[in-house]
Amino acid sequence: MIRNFTYYTPTKVAFGAGAEAKTGRLVKEQGCRKVLLHYGGGSARRSGLLDRVEQSLAQAGVEYVQLGGVVPNPRLSLVYEGIDLCRREGVDFILAVGGGSVIDSAKAIGYGAANEGDVWDYYMGLRKPSACLPLGAVLTLSATGSEMSNSSVITKEEGLLKRAYNDDISRPKFAVLNPELTMTLPPYQTASGCVDIMMHTMERYFNQSENLELTDGISHALLKTVMKNAAILLERPEDYNARAEVMWAGSLSHNGLTGCGNDGGDWACHKLEHELGGLYDVAHGAGLAAVWGSWARYVYKARVERFAQFARCVMDVDACDDPEACALAGIAALEDFFRSIQMPTSLRELGVNPTESEIEEMAAKCAAGAPGGTVGVVRPLEQADMAAIYRAAL
Amino acid sequence: MIRNFTYYTPTKVAFGAGAEAKTGRLVKEQGCRKVLLHYGGGSARRSGLLDRVEQSLAQAGVEYVQLGGVVPNPRLSLVYEGIDLCRREGVDFILAVGGGSVIDSAKAIGYGAANEGDVWDYYMGLRKPSACLPLGAVLTLSATGSEMSNSSVITKEEGLLKRAYNDDISRPKFAVLNPELTMTLPPYQTASGCVDIMMHTMERYFNQSENLELTDGISHALLKTVMKNAAILLERPEDYNARAEVMWAGSLSHNGLTGCGNDGGDWACHKLEHELGGLYDVAHGAGLAAVWGSWARYVYKARVERFAQFARCVMDVDACDDPEACALAGIAALEDFFRSIQMPTSLRELGVNPTESEIEEMAAKCAAGAPGGTVGVVRPLEQADMAAIYRAAL
Repeated sequence: MIRNFTYYTPTKVAFGAGAEAKTGRLVKEQGCRKVLLHYGGGSARRSGLLDRVEQSLAQAGVEYVQLGGVVPNPRLSLVYEGIDLCRREGVDFILAVGGGSVIDSAKAIGYGAANEGDVWDYYMGLRKPSACLPLGAVLTLSATGSEMSNSSVITKEEGLLKRAYNDDISRPKFAVLNPELTMTLPPYQTASGCVDIMMHTMERYFNQSENLELTDGISHALLKTVMKNAAILLERPEDYNARAEVMWAGSLSHNGLTGCGNDGGDWACHKLEHELGGLYDVAHGAGLAAVWGSWARYVYKARVERFAQFARCVMDVDACDDPEACALAGIAALEDFFRSIQMPTSLRELGVNPTESEIEEMAAKCAAGAPGGTVGVVRPLEQADMAAIYRAAL
Repeated sequence: MIRNFTYYTPTKVAFGAGAEAKTGRLVKEQGCRKVLLHYGGGSARRSGLLDRVEQSLAQAGVEYVQLGGVVPNPRLSLVYEGIDLCRREGVDFILAVGGGSVIDSAKAIGYGAANEGDVWDYYMGLRKPSACLPLGAVLTLSATGSEMSNSSVITKEEGLLKRAYNDDISRPKFAVLNPELTMTLPPYQTASGCVDIMMHTMERYFNQSENLELTDGISHALLKTVMKNAAILLERPEDYNARAEVMWAGSLSHNGLTGCGNDGGDWACHKLEHELGGLYDVAHGAGLAAVWGSWARYVYKARVERFAQFARCVMDVDACDDPEACALAGIAALEDFFRSIQMPTSLRELGVNPTESEIEEMAAKCAAGAPGGTVGVVRPLEQADMAAIYRAAL
């Protein structure tokens, strides 16, 4: 029987060319008085985006203070700084202008500013926050889906510990999605984002429960759309419609839609990649591509029919009389696709070459961060399995 | 270029077996004190559903008053009664227990109770409401999608005038979707609901703009899922998973998801059917099935490629070398499907036989209710076109 589920996607999406001009009005609708304008490096300033957003806030009569400097794999130290700033300035709304790192950092600041105690406790699973400052996003990179999701990933510098916390109270109130803002991304970042988007659906798709056909059909359509348009963007990075397809897929892939009715999905690849990201600061999507094939070959026998369906319905594998051969052909076909958009399918291609002791360290940290010490549902992975997958991915 | 759009689906969905037990908690989350419990005939009482909902409200400590008696094609007179009751009793939340008619009636009461003046003005396009009482739904029939949508259709007894009003402020705060609650529906109502669900996506799909491939892919998946499971339910009305597929498709089909990025869609069939429904009190979905083929053959030449894509991707029509033949084969195939689930494909099969003067009256009312006097975008229809389609559908 299909499982019970909750679906909650309250984020108001303003999608399209020039949509950032609506930012001030969207903040105003929330009835907030003082905004923390949160962003990353200099590119949002240089491109003129921050100026346009500030102009929109000023037109709406919204006051704001600024905090830039978010880096990929956003850091806990800046989160602490943001929490202090919010308290000092009486901030009641956080506006993230950037990619997933900035939005994740904004969510962490939102938790921290609305509750007593150390915000890191939530990411370590020690406590739960009772509230989060309301936040909105102006997205500049299609990848993490953080603009509609309930999740946030933060890295603690000490020990390079990368941890996620998911809570519906942090879902952004609004998301400004202008595909034009993603046109100047380097090809590697675009492709890495496309892999991340695909993986948010695939982590849900590979599960151990019955599935709604409707959720499967939506997932197949989303994955095929991203693959087709990722290839287009390699050739024509300024193709507006292709940017729009990828951007909308990025939001739908991680807002819960592609997980309705199942057991929640596997998520082992994300957990394995988080340890890579903590240790090496690699692009998240590229890291996922580098481990996925090794994970899939390690676990597919526990769910052959599902891998075969993926092969038929997403990868257009024809020869599917033998489910196992079909499943393996689907895995190989997705790796071929990753390579075709210049994504790695091994750690070496990712540019990292962990020693045996580093592999053991990553596996140990991954197991230590998992409830019960295992990750994944297709085939629950213990620490030794994790190390084996890292090794297979070398 | 893909059009700009807003996507806003704030409704929290509690989906699954026994989900109505969460109703009291969901109302309580909204911070409301006094509920109008709104429902239709005696079946919700006889089935024990109303008792379970009342028990859940009592457990959560929520007070309520009751107003039953909503009929299909819900009446304005009961809406007025509900508005008076809300004002008299200080109601601050409306809980609709039933199908689309009950939810639509609740939305109308919500508009009326939160604003001065005649609520019918909104449905006649004379004014816009500034607020709506918050509302929630416990759904008993998969069809209208009103549980997540911004739309409401009310019939004024005087002149049998059936009119719709759409406004995001009426989107339900929550929707309780328990597929079990739809298991006892008669086959005709189940099939009629499936047609209505399909048409909410098809009205958006047949448009005159560019389209997001992702939206198209989701639409294809949704339509195929509904067709497959409508056929299953004809054989096994108590198949939980099939009821779940149809129920979730019903909500996604009309919450905006299948319209993202296009011009808003055609909606001529809905407008044509509204006049039938106003005059004859037919089941909405059956009325849509009865006119769709005649509409499609009347307009398809204005968008042959789109009808051909529908034929290929939804109806699995193979012979598509000639787009026009492919388009026509797709229309015929959908009519075959309607007949296979015992839905009408003509007015006679629907059980109505309007005279020429009744046809003229329906066309005149349809044109009078439309901005600029035309309905639809695939091929904008004037009054004479509407009459021609009714005649072709005889």
